[in-house]
Amino acid sequence: MTRLDTRDPGFAAGFAALLDTARETTARVDAAVAGIIGEIRAEGDAALLRLTARFDGWQPAGAAALRVTPEEIEAALAGIAPELLAALDLAATRIEQFHRAQMPRDLELPDPAGLTLGLRWTPLDAVGLYVPGGKAAYPSSVLMNALPARVAGVGRIAMAVPAPGGQLNPLVLAAARRAGVAEVYRIGGAQAVAALAWGTATIAPVDRIVGPGNAYVAEAKRQVFGRVGIDSIAGPSEVVVIADASNDPRHVAVDLLAQAEHDEAAQAILITDSAGFADAVAAAVAAELESLPRAAIAGESWRRHGAIILVRDWEEAFGLASRLAPEHLQLMLPEPRAAMARVRHAGAAFLGRYCPEAIGDYVAGPNHVLPTGRTARFASGLSVFDFLKRTTWVEASPAGLAAIGPAAVALAEAEGLQAHGRSVALRLG
Amino acid sequence: MTRLDTRDPGFAAGFAALLDTARETTARVDAAVAGIIGEIRAEGDAALLRLTARFDGWQPAGAAALRVTPEEIEAALAGIAPELLAALDLAATRIEQFHRAQMPRDLELPDPAGLTLGLRWTPLDAVGLYVPGGKAAYPSSVLMNALPARVAGVGRIAMAVPAPGGQLNPLVLAAARRAGVAEVYRIGGAQAVAALAWGTATIAPVDRIVGPGNAYVAEAKRQVFGRVGIDSIAGPSEVVVIADASNDPRHVAVDLLAQAEHDEAAQAILITDSAGFADAVAAAVAAELESLPRAAIAGESWRRHGAIILVRDWEEAFGLASRLAPEHLQLMLPEPRAAMARVRHAGAAFLGRYCPEAIGDYVAGPNHVLPTGRTARFASGLSVFDFLKRTTWVEASPAGLAAIGPAAVALAEAEGLQAHGRSVALRLG
Repeated sequence: MTRLDTRDPGFAAGFAALLDTARETTARVDAAVAGIIGEIRAEGDAALLRLTARFDGWQPAGAAALRVTPEEIEAALAGIAPELLAALDLAATRIEQFHRAQMPRDLELPDPAGLTLGLRWTPLDAVGLYVPGGKAAYPSSVLMNALPARVAGVGRIAMAVPAPGGQLNPLVLAAARRAGVAEVYRIGGAQAVAALAWGTATIAPVDRIVGPGNAYVAEAKRQVFGRVGIDSIAGPSEVVVIADASNDPRHVAVDLLAQAEHDEAAQAILITDSAGFADAVAAAVAAELESLPRAAIAGESWRRHGAIILVRDWEEAFGLASRLAPEHLQLMLPEPRAAMARVRHAGAAFLGRYCPEAIGDYVAGPNHVLPTGRTARFASGLSVFDFLKRTTWVEASPAGLAAIGPAAVALAEAEGLQAHGRSVALRLG
Repeated sequence: MTRLDTRDPGFAAGFAALLDTARETTARVDAAVAGIIGEIRAEGDAALLRLTARFDGWQPAGAAALRVTPEEIEAALAGIAPELLAALDLAATRIEQFHRAQMPRDLELPDPAGLTLGLRWTPLDAVGLYVPGGKAAYPSSVLMNALPARVAGVGRIAMAVPAPGGQLNPLVLAAARRAGVAEVYRIGGAQAVAALAWGTATIAPVDRIVGPGNAYVAEAKRQVFGRVGIDSIAGPSEVVVIADASNDPRHVAVDLLAQAEHDEAAQAILITDSAGFADAVAAAVAAELESLPRAAIAGESWRRHGAIILVRDWEEAFGLASRLAPEHLQLMLPEPRAAMARVRHAGAAFLGRYCPEAIGDYVAGPNHVLPTGRTARFASGLSVFDFLKRTTWVEASPAGLAAIGPAAVALAEAEGLQAHGRSVALRLG
């Protein structure tokens, strides 16, 4: 864990190092992935069956066996505790509500010159949702990726989830059912991404692929981009907590560790104006690590990437937070809304002393798929906008064209595009 | 030019070939670009000066000479015909109005459970705008890229435009001034993209880079992506015109050629229900090519990539247009709005017989930076949304947390993330 103090002469260099630390060393898998994509494009289902047997350790009986049946989903549901299904349902309902409120409206703008301008939002036809299998199978991630697509009106959502040894996580299937995903394939890796992008005899191609995955999945998404849309490739998770000394140090410590337990490469940063509070939080982190099941991961993240920054005043804190542009920002201050107004960049903000980031991971309603690695300077979390696209339109009458056409002709000729000019001039009569 | 008829048995194969034709063969410049980016990162301005001398054929006196002065911009303006400046101003005013109408509103949603959820839109701090130099210098493109950023509230727009032999296009400078871009550098190529992304002593880094460019510029944008945001890499331009026999064949022919004159790789497609009209348009294309200054380019595009598709009825036409998902769609039919409602994917639509696509390139108001190569299935044209990002937020009271916190704890524990659960449970008291 790094301790910095804005009063120290070495602060600028220390903070710059914190900003520049690359927390990820992704293995180069370009060639392997290109090979897998090539096999799927050339052989379709046959390659998909062969690669599934090789990488997931089970032999599908045939292409039809790749699809999870409604009976299997029902059977999975039967084994889940009712309170867990209720929690999933509460989460889904709140996520739906928040994303429904985001839906944009079409524009139709009549124009004094006699034209009408418009903007139409329409959903994508088909979306592929990648869901990691095995130990990192997160039902919350199924809800967060599938529900915005459903709310946006996407007609078809095809989900790919690898089944290591043939096994699927029942709660992932329950989340898919709650999110209205009826088309689930037990496939994974680069081969699943390739099958969704290019299609096979049994899997129709989609228009966009979203969802987290390992290095192979991320590289496959990069390589199919252009053929289909993709979401951004998420880096390790991160939080910045800005807290004054009135907070319970243990609350802050656990909030930091909740981020750190994701991954050794995760980053948790506390910014405070009290050296005493900083010490108390550091001590509480150490104490909590004693009893945390994922202490090995969380401890490693905290030691390697954790930081406590001592500031002279809150304006300084807000400036540093803007430069960090964190995925998650907790504002544990007396006036958190005023504080938020001063931080220019963050993926998601959590306001007040009773708002741990973890409620945003599951049940608050906003999306938990968020920009990492300082990309909140220019990027946003997943939303209905990821599943909608715009068509702008212009409707012109002869009078409307007469009003603005001559300017178009002048500009087209200045740019040396005479057919452009002629297409307008011909109609000016 | 390809002629297809939906009644022919070979239609499906012919149309599939049309969909799959790769119209672009981009040279592989990955290694060269990686080298240039490395030089800029290591040496900053010194490398920028050296590479500008090498690639643009002029020797800047020093780093300060890279920036275009206000006096140079004024001098450029003085030499431009007043009617051209007026056309530029009409275009800018209309583009501003249309993009201002797109601006989204923040959300604040009080919640029966006692939480408040919100979504805040904020502009990017700084944007880099790449503008090609030399013969392909398009002032309209400066307006289309810069004005949405200005309307979105971006504080700083830095423009890079190469000056081959030291020369800049006066109309490009006039467009920059009209768009409120005060920071203009005479730099280009991958070195300009690298300088904008990483910064040098004289050029502060930006958060996102937009604008068209050659293969080096496109590859440089790909390589700096992640460090900064980028816009999509545009492919060759394209239009689908759906027209009945009531149209003037010459109008349609010139509209097709206006697209074709951009580039040999451009694509212009007519869909009609009348074989006679199809013949008349084909003849008119041949006749127009006789007198078109860019006939060599437009003719080559039409021969290689042009197509006329004969359909049985308009529903068939709308279905084919949806599959083509064209950058530009002209609907020259009696009820163009009803027709537009039936085409699911298009970057921009132009409605009626008096609405040539060229007015959209310059003065209509919607953006002319649009998705190409069938990506309108999932992507949209440039807009204020490219220069804004969202921060979602949650504000929770103790009662609010008590209402939804237990569900978060249940889900966190099911996912094996105990610190997540503990961060909520601790506050439930």
